[in-house]
Amino acid sequence: MTEQSFEGLTATPIRRLADHVGERVLVQGWLYNLRSKGKLHFLQVRDGTGIVQAVMSVADVAEADFEAVKAATQESSLRVIGTVKTDERAPGGVELTVSRAVIVHVAEPYPIAKKEHGPDFLLGNRHLWLRSKRQMAILRVRDSVIRAIREFFHDRGFHCVDSPMFTPSACEGTTTLFQLDYFDDSKAYLTQSGQLYGEASAMALGKIYVFGPVFRAEKSKTRRHLTEFWMVEPEAAFYDLDDVMVLAEEFVAHIVRHVLRENRSDLADLERDVTKLEPAAGTPYPRVTYDDAVRYLHEHGHADFRYGDDFGAPHETVLGDAHDRPVLVHRWPAEVKAFYMKRDPANPKLALGVDMIASEGYGELIGGAQREDDFGELEKRLVEHELPREAFEWFLDLRRYGSVPHGGFGLGLERTLAWICGVDHLRECIPFPRMLYRIYP
Amino acid sequence: MTEQSFEGLTATPIRRLADHVGERVLVQGWLYNLRSKGKLHFLQVRDGTGIVQAVMSVADVAEADFEAVKAATQESSLRVIGTVKTDERAPGGVELTVSRAVIVHVAEPYPIAKKEHGPDFLLGNRHLWLRSKRQMAILRVRDSVIRAIREFFHDRGFHCVDSPMFTPSACEGTTTLFQLDYFDDSKAYLTQSGQLYGEASAMALGKIYVFGPVFRAEKSKTRRHLTEFWMVEPEAAFYDLDDVMVLAEEFVAHIVRHVLRENRSDLADLERDVTKLEPAAGTPYPRVTYDDAVRYLHEHGHADFRYGDDFGAPHETVLGDAHDRPVLVHRWPAEVKAFYMKRDPANPKLALGVDMIASEGYGELIGGAQREDDFGELEKRLVEHELPREAFEWFLDLRRYGSVPHGGFGLGLERTLAWICGVDHLRECIPFPRMLYRIYP
Repeated sequence: MTEQSFEGLTATPIRRLADHVGERVLVQGWLYNLRSKGKLHFLQVRDGTGIVQAVMSVADVAEADFEAVKAATQESSLRVIGTVKTDERAPGGVELTVSRAVIVHVAEPYPIAKKEHGPDFLLGNRHLWLRSKRQMAILRVRDSVIRAIREFFHDRGFHCVDSPMFTPSACEGTTTLFQLDYFDDSKAYLTQSGQLYGEASAMALGKIYVFGPVFRAEKSKTRRHLTEFWMVEPEAAFYDLDDVMVLAEEFVAHIVRHVLRENRSDLADLERDVTKLEPAAGTPYPRVTYDDAVRYLHEHGHADFRYGDDFGAPHETVLGDAHDRPVLVHRWPAEVKAFYMKRDPANPKLALGVDMIASEGYGELIGGAQREDDFGELEKRLVEHELPREAFEWFLDLRRYGSVPHGGFGLGLERTLAWICGVDHLRECIPFPRMLYRIYP
Repeated sequence: MTEQSFEGLTATPIRRLADHVGERVLVQGWLYNLRSKGKLHFLQVRDGTGIVQAVMSVADVAEADFEAVKAATQESSLRVIGTVKTDERAPGGVELTVSRAVIVHVAEPYPIAKKEHGPDFLLGNRHLWLRSKRQMAILRVRDSVIRAIREFFHDRGFHCVDSPMFTPSACEGTTTLFQLDYFDDSKAYLTQSGQLYGEASAMALGKIYVFGPVFRAEKSKTRRHLTEFWMVEPEAAFYDLDDVMVLAEEFVAHIVRHVLRENRSDLADLERDVTKLEPAAGTPYPRVTYDDAVRYLHEHGHADFRYGDDFGAPHETVLGDAHDRPVLVHRWPAEVKAFYMKRDPANPKLALGVDMIASEGYGELIGGAQREDDFGELEKRLVEHELPREAFEWFLDLRRYGSVPHGGFGLGLERTLAWICGVDHLRECIPFPRMLYRIYP
């Protein structure tokens, strides 16, 4: 027994129908839309791989089948047998001439109509909202980006090393940590970044990447905030800042090329202007120092920007829009960057950090750095940043036992996806977004 | 500037040295072991991809280089330039004749010696323990298994859909849930399984898999318990129990074939008897009903096993050892299985669930099922299992709007890895294990 076949036919994914022109095929899925005109039904059927129009004529099918479809509501599940016909006006280039249609389950009146809904309603029905054309396209691009990420690192000899979710301490301060009750009155914190563990792993395997969820208890309710999101964090022994910047630009260019190759129809569903993305498929990316970036801001509408501050969204937009592809801003004032960044030997006031900023206002995609590899310097930074030494004792060990120059970066998956898909809100870039007042469904 | 090169040479990974016989290469890494004999140093150098012996003769190198190596301790970092020479006695088939060696950092006396250490000491130094040959091999196999998992599902048209870590409720009961403070005195729970979200996603994309960390607040301190571990959970629309069983056996066989092909030297480092694994590379796997399994137990030393109970570790060992590859036990008494499993139409006392049990005492690798797709039946189960209806309202929606037969399973990554690597303790199968009294480092 198998549910993947019906009447001797094995289901064909809609995305593959064009390979079966003239053949009799089985499609299993859901009714996306139905239009009836006298003796014809025009069924839009979706199966997750695409949407196809199935034309059903009363002359070709059993009377009962034709009547049953009349009663089928949006999102009713069904099996359709038909012949694949080329039709240049159709989205996938094909449609189906139906010879049999069986409704599996008639859906109750579907709550998500074609009309506009508010975000609260859609988020509350996220389990259903995912079935809309736009959300399915974003999900497919997300899957594709995840594959591109893993392929890139594997091809370059990086091993995936998963960092823990439960941590005894914060990586970059405690203000945005989620705390939970562990056992016997002890406390644990949810990870904000796998980087420190990535550094330990790079000292074992040489080149690694961490890829998993991270958590930020930020009490912000903007379109750029999620309380949980996914981050990929490569870390490599014997990498300096230049190596990190080359890795970062090749990485993002690889992702963009992958999506442009694999997800054309999804980008079309999202009405993404791909000419805005295409330049990012090429390297190198432009590089500017923080100093130069500040000068540029002063000359382009932000005369009041104070040297030494971190960039806000408006500054990132101006800097990002100065180029046709993401820009790398490197060598930052040490005070605005994390304790673990190495200082620039040419100017110890600067940290060897780099941010990658996207164009079109999508902001920071990547934050990276060469790490401090000197035991004494790192020890000093912990004091300066008022971090609890005992929690970082193991991290200091990495500078006690065979320290090497090393570096890496973190890329936020949802931010990258927002940029690639041309989506404004991060909440659409993760299957089940978690926000300040949202953990259901 | 780049740290990946030195004296005009770009570093060669040790695993690739055999492709460079007769060439002058640069190796960057750490000193795994040093043996000196008069005018010769024998350095075991590791870089994460492998270990190579580098032979340094005082006649071939600068006096100062030779002296510096004398002072190098275990795990000191270094750069070695040398010529690759075939040597059939060497592990990778090659060794290096050193012309230059530069110590990057002299390690303090390394705490992990060749002697045996207790598990508490090793776990407390997990950030260093990872550098041992055995742990590096497990990490590499883990990376390989993760790739095999993603490759398998992608090739079969499954999309990766990440489920949330924060959930409003439990999937299978509340006794082993981690609870945390969300915002404004609200509570959230950490996910125990992504399955319910996977079901919603399968109704959108047809075939999906969830792959991420899950959490269990079990107050157990055995070698089989972790409080966080990784699980992969495929879910597919129009799949029945038979489809699920075929998917499960092909999946595990694919993983085994992948590791046997890609990780031979790692399995050798682990002294894994691969003849025990090889049969699992072939399908089909044996299938027995729960009823038959109980009969087998009764006849093989467990006459006191009570029909209707779940299997314990001793029972799994007996059942697993009856076959040369994992066995699928299907059609379970409904009471021992989760509320969401569909009942067997041939016998409503049975649930259409399946467990895959490994041989050699490694226990359950997979738990799966065909899901209840009928709204009324599912509603009844929620009552029977005393689950809070309002938390599952969205899950019921999946049976309101275009319900279809569907199924899937969950595979525990660390358990699978323990079996493949022949490792007794799950704590060695995850980079930074979290257990009852262990969240550091």
